[in-house]
Amino acid sequence: MTVSIGYINGKYVELDELAIPIEERGHQFGDGVYEVIRYYDGKGFMLEEHLERLKESTEAIRINLEGGIEPIRSIIEEGVKKAGIPDCYVYLQITRGIAERNHLFPGSEVKPSISMTVKKMVPRKKEAEEGVGVITHPDERWANCYIKSLNLLPNILAKQTAADAGCFEAILIKDNYVTEGTQSTMFIVEGVTVVTPPLSKQILPGITRIAVLDICKIAGIKLEEREISKEELFNADEVFLTSTMSEVMPITSIDNQKVGTGEPGNITKVLMELFVAKRSK
Amino acid sequence: MTVSIGYINGKYVELDELAIPIEERGHQFGDGVYEVIRYYDGKGFMLEEHLERLKESTEAIRINLEGGIEPIRSIIEEGVKKAGIPDCYVYLQITRGIAERNHLFPGSEVKPSISMTVKKMVPRKKEAEEGVGVITHPDERWANCYIKSLNLLPNILAKQTAADAGCFEAILIKDNYVTEGTQSTMFIVEGVTVVTPPLSKQILPGITRIAVLDICKIAGIKLEEREISKEELFNADEVFLTSTMSEVMPITSIDNQKVGTGEPGNITKVLMELFVAKRSK
Repeated sequence: MTVSIGYINGKYVELDELAIPIEERGHQFGDGVYEVIRYYDGKGFMLEEHLERLKESTEAIRINLEGGIEPIRSIIEEGVKKAGIPDCYVYLQITRGIAERNHLFPGSEVKPSISMTVKKMVPRKKEAEEGVGVITHPDERWANCYIKSLNLLPNILAKQTAADAGCFEAILIKDNYVTEGTQSTMFIVEGVTVVTPPLSKQILPGITRIAVLDICKIAGIKLEEREISKEELFNADEVFLTSTMSEVMPITSIDNQKVGTGEPGNITKVLMELFVAKRSK
Repeated sequence: MTVSIGYINGKYVELDELAIPIEERGHQFGDGVYEVIRYYDGKGFMLEEHLERLKESTEAIRINLEGGIEPIRSIIEEGVKKAGIPDCYVYLQITRGIAERNHLFPGSEVKPSISMTVKKMVPRKKEAEEGVGVITHPDERWANCYIKSLNLLPNILAKQTAADAGCFEAILIKDNYVTEGTQSTMFIVEGVTVVTPPLSKQILPGITRIAVLDICKIAGIKLEEREISKEELFNADEVFLTSTMSEVMPITSIDNQKVGTGEPGNITKVLMELFVAKRSK
């Protein structure tokens, strides 16, 4: 069984193989977008939603996918099949392509570059069972975080600051309000109400966020989409994050302060179970 | 005579040669910094200042250059010599290196990737003579634009919007004040006073900006470093931009409105001449 495979522009490559020239717009500008998709037991979880978001990201930065999104679906499905790993994650990125360095878009003869890796997933079991600690960090990102772009330097720097403090993630705070994590969506629980910030240009429309909203609706759990102040965050009964890779992940401390009892909360645990049920369907 | 050369991590490469694996932190995160350096008649213009800014950029994003900045100087000087083009520009970028995709910094065994191109310079004579048109555009960039990072997507999108409007550059406006261009520093002239925004986290400390400030001082031209409102920009007698590639470039229209008489301004033209004198020394 392969442990991981790489792909670029129609060709399968080794992960350490030279595959891109230096003048490529991902490499020189971060000029591209991406998705991370989880496969459970050989089936892509919420693949349609990921493809739809990828399409929206490419449109937002004006990358023209001539054949639309369907060829991307085929690339992903073929890659997963070729990798032969039923529990894997797909990383797929699209850049504006290979062209002489110039801020301006290259001509239409330059086609977008599509690269992908398919790797075995090692679920984050210990973290999910025990909960994780996080820090708060100023949200220093650009104005259009609804686009899943490769301009990830602010995310990297905040996430590394979290890791340096022994934490799993950084909760980004803008003007005293929670936006999201560096690679996750934020939720709090107040009493029996689940709260998450409403979608805006500042926030990525998380795919696992959609799943959790769906679960709340079906299970009759009260949910509010509204702004969360930093004070509310620290006073919440429960806090959790969601992402494709972390699923539903309890947060048990923020800036070294306990969340609630310091253990994963009850509503969070119910949502974790319902999430497992949903993605196992 | 070579027209351009490429370089990466100790090796000279063709510009279209495969040189980088897909899992490289420039390619996947824009996790790096860069400089563009102009050589006039075989001599690097303000090379020390570029190297110093590059050092500061790497430090700001916590890329560790084990040997310091001196090996970078050698790479640049050797590259220019090898290219054999006296009037050229060097593009040099440093990323956090080649590592399995993870937001967190890789271990210390992963060394930064250094890539470079040296290309023949074609001066922007027509634009400099006639002046250029620009648009205003919201500044949607992140909070740390003083770092010359590869996260250039907002710059690209604004610059392309300018080009779509038949313009040379976009002046970025934040909270009604001018920050800078997508790849240039902004100056206005009010009467006999040259004005440019003060350095801050929002603004790249331009190398040509340093040169122009220097010229003003030596020539006794009154200069103020202070905020410029959008209204002031539109009412200025003269407007110009500076950058390594554009030197001192007159702006003759903004959002289709004439600047002053619609011709390059007199103080701008004096500064252009003094700049040519300075870089020809």
